[in-house]
Amino acid sequence: MAANGSLDAHGSLLDNGFASTDDLVSDWYIYETMEPAVPQDDMFPNVIPDCDPTISPRLYHTCMAPISLAVLIGLSLLVKRKRLHPSCWNGVPGLLSPANFLEEEGNRGLVAAVFGILFSSLCVLVLDSDPLPLISDSSQHNREYWKILALLYYPAFYYPLVACATVRHRASYFVGCLLSWCHCVVHIWQKVDCPQSPKIYRYYSVLSYVPIILCLVVLSLWYPALLIRSFTGQEESLEKEVTGRGYYKKYLKALLSKRSRKGGSTKVEESRLSRVQAYLGSYVYAPQEGFRIPLKLVLSTTTAVIAVYQVALLLLVAVVPTIQIVRVEMTKDVVVLLVQFGLVPSENPGGVPGNMEMELSTVKYYLWSLEVCYICSLVLCCLLTFAMLMRTLVMHRNNLKALYQGAVLDVFYKAHILRPSRQAVVCWMSFAGFQTAFVCLGLLIQQVIFFICSVAFTFLFVIPLQSGTNTYLFKILQNMWPFWLTLVVTVIVQNLAAHYQFLEQHPLWKELTNRRALYIVSYLFFPINILVGVLAGLWRMVISALYNAIHFCRLDISLLNRSVETFDPGYHAYCHYLKIEVSQSHPVMKAFCLLLLQLSRPEGQPGLRPSNVEEGIQLMQTKKVPSSRAKFRQSRARWWLAYTLLNNPSLMACRKTALSDPTANGTRLSPPKP
Amino acid sequence: MAANGSLDAHGSLLDNGFASTDDLVSDWYIYETMEPAVPQDDMFPNVIPDCDPTISPRLYHTCMAPISLAVLIGLSLLVKRKRLHPSCWNGVPGLLSPANFLEEEGNRGLVAAVFGILFSSLCVLVLDSDPLPLISDSSQHNREYWKILALLYYPAFYYPLVACATVRHRASYFVGCLLSWCHCVVHIWQKVDCPQSPKIYRYYSVLSYVPIILCLVVLSLWYPALLIRSFTGQEESLEKEVTGRGYYKKYLKALLSKRSRKGGSTKVEESRLSRVQAYLGSYVYAPQEGFRIPLKLVLSTTTAVIAVYQVALLLLVAVVPTIQIVRVEMTKDVVVLLVQFGLVPSENPGGVPGNMEMELSTVKYYLWSLEVCYICSLVLCCLLTFAMLMRTLVMHRNNLKALYQGAVLDVFYKAHILRPSRQAVVCWMSFAGFQTAFVCLGLLIQQVIFFICSVAFTFLFVIPLQSGTNTYLFKILQNMWPFWLTLVVTVIVQNLAAHYQFLEQHPLWKELTNRRALYIVSYLFFPINILVGVLAGLWRMVISALYNAIHFCRLDISLLNRSVETFDPGYHAYCHYLKIEVSQSHPVMKAFCLLLLQLSRPEGQPGLRPSNVEEGIQLMQTKKVPSSRAKFRQSRARWWLAYTLLNNPSLMACRKTALSDPTANGTRLSPPKP
Repeated sequence: MAANGSLDAHGSLLDNGFASTDDLVSDWYIYETMEPAVPQDDMFPNVIPDCDPTISPRLYHTCMAPISLAVLIGLSLLVKRKRLHPSCWNGVPGLLSPANFLEEEGNRGLVAAVFGILFSSLCVLVLDSDPLPLISDSSQHNREYWKILALLYYPAFYYPLVACATVRHRASYFVGCLLSWCHCVVHIWQKVDCPQSPKIYRYYSVLSYVPIILCLVVLSLWYPALLIRSFTGQEESLEKEVTGRGYYKKYLKALLSKRSRKGGSTKVEESRLSRVQAYLGSYVYAPQEGFRIPLKLVLSTTTAVIAVYQVALLLLVAVVPTIQIVRVEMTKDVVVLLVQFGLVPSENPGGVPGNMEMELSTVKYYLWSLEVCYICSLVLCCLLTFAMLMRTLVMHRNNLKALYQGAVLDVFYKAHILRPSRQAVVCWMSFAGFQTAFVCLGLLIQQVIFFICSVAFTFLFVIPLQSGTNTYLFKILQNMWPFWLTLVVTVIVQNLAAHYQFLEQHPLWKELTNRRALYIVSYLFFPINILVGVLAGLWRMVISALYNAIHFCRLDISLLNRSVETFDPGYHAYCHYLKIEVSQSHPVMKAFCLLLLQLSRPEGQPGLRPSNVEEGIQLMQTKKVPSSRAKFRQSRARWWLAYTLLNNPSLMACRKTALSDPTANGTRLSPPKP
Repeated sequence: MAANGSLDAHGSLLDNGFASTDDLVSDWYIYETMEPAVPQDDMFPNVIPDCDPTISPRLYHTCMAPISLAVLIGLSLLVKRKRLHPSCWNGVPGLLSPANFLEEEGNRGLVAAVFGILFSSLCVLVLDSDPLPLISDSSQHNREYWKILALLYYPAFYYPLVACATVRHRASYFVGCLLSWCHCVVHIWQKVDCPQSPKIYRYYSVLSYVPIILCLVVLSLWYPALLIRSFTGQEESLEKEVTGRGYYKKYLKALLSKRSRKGGSTKVEESRLSRVQAYLGSYVYAPQEGFRIPLKLVLSTTTAVIAVYQVALLLLVAVVPTIQIVRVEMTKDVVVLLVQFGLVPSENPGGVPGNMEMELSTVKYYLWSLEVCYICSLVLCCLLTFAMLMRTLVMHRNNLKALYQGAVLDVFYKAHILRPSRQAVVCWMSFAGFQTAFVCLGLLIQQVIFFICSVAFTFLFVIPLQSGTNTYLFKILQNMWPFWLTLVVTVIVQNLAAHYQFLEQHPLWKELTNRRALYIVSYLFFPINILVGVLAGLWRMVISALYNAIHFCRLDISLLNRSVETFDPGYHAYCHYLKIEVSQSHPVMKAFCLLLLQLSRPEGQPGLRPSNVEEGIQLMQTKKVPSSRAKFRQSRARWWLAYTLLNNPSLMACRKTALSDPTANGTRLSPPKP
């Protein structure tokens, strides 16, 4: 029984809270048991068939876990044989890297999909009664332990799916294909077998698995594409072996050709409309040529979007079906009670149960209004959260670009040293998790606030306007209009007096005048200004609460005052994340490092001679300037280098440290002689 | 009947909300009417005698209002005859200035006392049923209009009390004495006649009048002191005629002798303890030599302190007596109901009314706990608000000093031009009102939050520990310990790994190493990091809510993020207030202006010859450097001027504007030739 099920769940909740209310609760439900003619329409058939999928979760995990392990070991040996150096991680031959989060890789979508699967699994896990399908023991007490174990099991379980791509071998792509197809088929099969489940809402289970299935579909298309490309585009795959070279080249080109764009930015006086357009445009993330968001941000955005979906789904299916059931099953007896409590307006306040048709429809209308408010506020929350995520991406890009150019004070309020530290590494590791969790919490907070606001608006404003009852708000407003008028008149009078009486208007400056009158007005209006201040205070409360609720999911701004902004855990994590990201994956630095790597390889490509690699200029050769003489080229190369460093002062530190360590390879990056 | 009165008030509130619950409410009160033996101890005698004071408020206002008006007209004529120029306010002979808010005056306490009286009158007025004692008509509908009229009446009514001091004439001091004594005696007499009133709480009326009476006492001591001084200290009073000269002298001396103090501020490495001490010390406002808080801030602080008193008093007397009455009058029948609702633990859950002694005492104990929580949170709120007010004063001083020296970016996040504007004048006028209103609202918000927190703490933590019942929280914590342990272990492991594995420790810098392991850890801990993120998000929510609630009463910080901080109405008002204050009452500028004024007077004191007044140096002559030759003096004077301007760059603008306007007197302030 869906209806009874959910109501019984409430009953048991109540039982926990109020120990001795069993008889009251059972009394309450007499209405239902006594009336067998409760309308059971097609929307709420109350039997969900028991269903065992052909491939049970236990079978699936029992088979796939060993296969995954075998794949992992096999790939490790393959890599070990191929190019893994024993010096990594103190000689342990070890695990494959899941993804090179600080490098620029081609397979960003693939990694993002795996993180999406992981996060969705966590969502399913939190509400699941059978967290670890490998183990059949699921008693109440042990379940906690299995859940904790599952938190580590799932990343390991899906590990091969992401590791196959980092190996960059034809065999690994093939294994990745097989694995992703396997996972995908099993999940789809399970859900086709058993689309309904009794948990929360009959289709909740299917809907909550949609992101997993979508991500698996992405994977099972991505791996074949990689495999096919490894066969056809032989040349290109070799080129790609040094990851992300294309991107760093593009970044440098965009950086060095920036002057031409700069000319257009010196606009005078923009109109108000264009400023509004620019403001709205700053909330839309449009990719810019020559700049890519780092992988960690792609991951956090992906999981954040999935988080919005999962939380919104849970909020929707946990409440809306219940309201619908209550609305359909509303009886006259309950209406009598509501009328007696004064919650529903009635023409016969005594509450005769036989004559309550109109009141019943009113109650049903109220419940429908509640439902509409709930869904509207949920939609609003989701839209706002998406807007905030877009804005976050824009801000991330701006901040990263500013920090790449060394403009630390454009981003942080106080000067920071962009250098790894213990805290920075920990924050970098947990950044994606924080972003995801904050989106979940932010959505919940917004939903609570907006639902309360919309219900208040509906029941105090819309419904009274429609029906003419419950016009408390209008009565209060009507009674208080002289008060509001006084405040408005006071504010206007003060503004007018300030403009025309107390300010002497010179063409170039304004000066205070008529001071005595100013003092008198200031004294006489003191009591009224206190009341204006009360309104301003209420506005301060509302605006700060709303601002903080809406911007809760954004890590790039602090919710605290600027003097204590790093006490905000989200902003603190973001600042440290930026430190690692900027100091470790500066595109220009990466470009230089890549050149060094290519130099140290014996099969260096022709055209990359050490002499002109030294200044790392090969990357910056644009088509416009063909070079002829070596002398001219060298001087220009040095100028490019100086210009690059001038535009990226944060690189200076890296060069200096490289220089002070004689064992490093960085000696090649010696500064040009003046 | 105090008890019935307050309960009936609640009843009527309920009536407004629920129209048809009259019978329910009357049922509820059957307990009281049926039990005549309700314990009526000495704390709650239930008859407040009707009381008409000998001097009724109506008589008082009918007599004093004409007297005040007559005093005002008389003083105006006196001043007109004496020295009022017809050019002020376009020739209207007009009103006296209540206080020169932008000048430095001696009678700051007097002005503050009058503002305190005004604010307290407003507090009394808001809750009063008879707002304008001059008018006997107090029907429900007209009362609103009388209240609005009273908002303007009270400032006018107390106007002579403050205006008498600004006239600076012996007769005005004498009139001020008489008036303040009159007001004071009448108020004290009224309250001695009728100490009790039925409104809210029997002593509420007396207690809410305490600030008014105290302020009147201050006035009725201040005016005699002024009168006596005008007779005895003839010389000094003449000296004081140019107001605040002493202060500006002191400010300049402190400014110019700052170098000696600066030497001690270059301390190396402070210990953690001394930093904590310095932090706590920054919350204590200790007056500094050579600097005085402007008058407006003194006023706003005074009214804010009175606001704390009034709001705390109202919160106290509106709730605590009611709880006490409910506790004393608690009957076994109510206890039975509470036991049946499961709110009170019981050994006989059936709820036999005869055998409820223990449960009755438990309920009384719970009510007593509620009372204790309420009072504790109220005390905490008041202390926090006082701390915030102190801190505000410290910040005001720092900000003003920084702006005097032209360090705009130390105070504001973006560059501002410190110049009067319409908005700035309006904000300056309403600043004291805003500060007062924000303190009231902030106290209310804090009380709600702290009361809920303390009740939750008491009933979920303290009482379960004492009695061993209702141990929900402990059960939840007990069930969830593996979860907490996992999170803690994860965070510790990540920190240790970051410190020992992922960071290469060089003596001078740290570098990221073992990247593959870092990526693996980062991937595997992703689900657990989401849960850590949820906790961080909750902490973010709590800390931002608490921070904003505690700092609500402070105008000098914005509750919004730094990029949108001026959308906060409080901070916006504060920024504009600072603009007016700094541009119009810069002490150094005032010192120069005073010199110019003295110069233009025919009876210039000896020793203020135009030649050396020109650079405004007379003020800065310290005792150490006796001057001998005119040449040397002039060159040194110019150096002083240059130094002063160097330390106060914001003055430069004033000098320039003065120069560009040939009609102004400022031509004397020509820059020294190099």
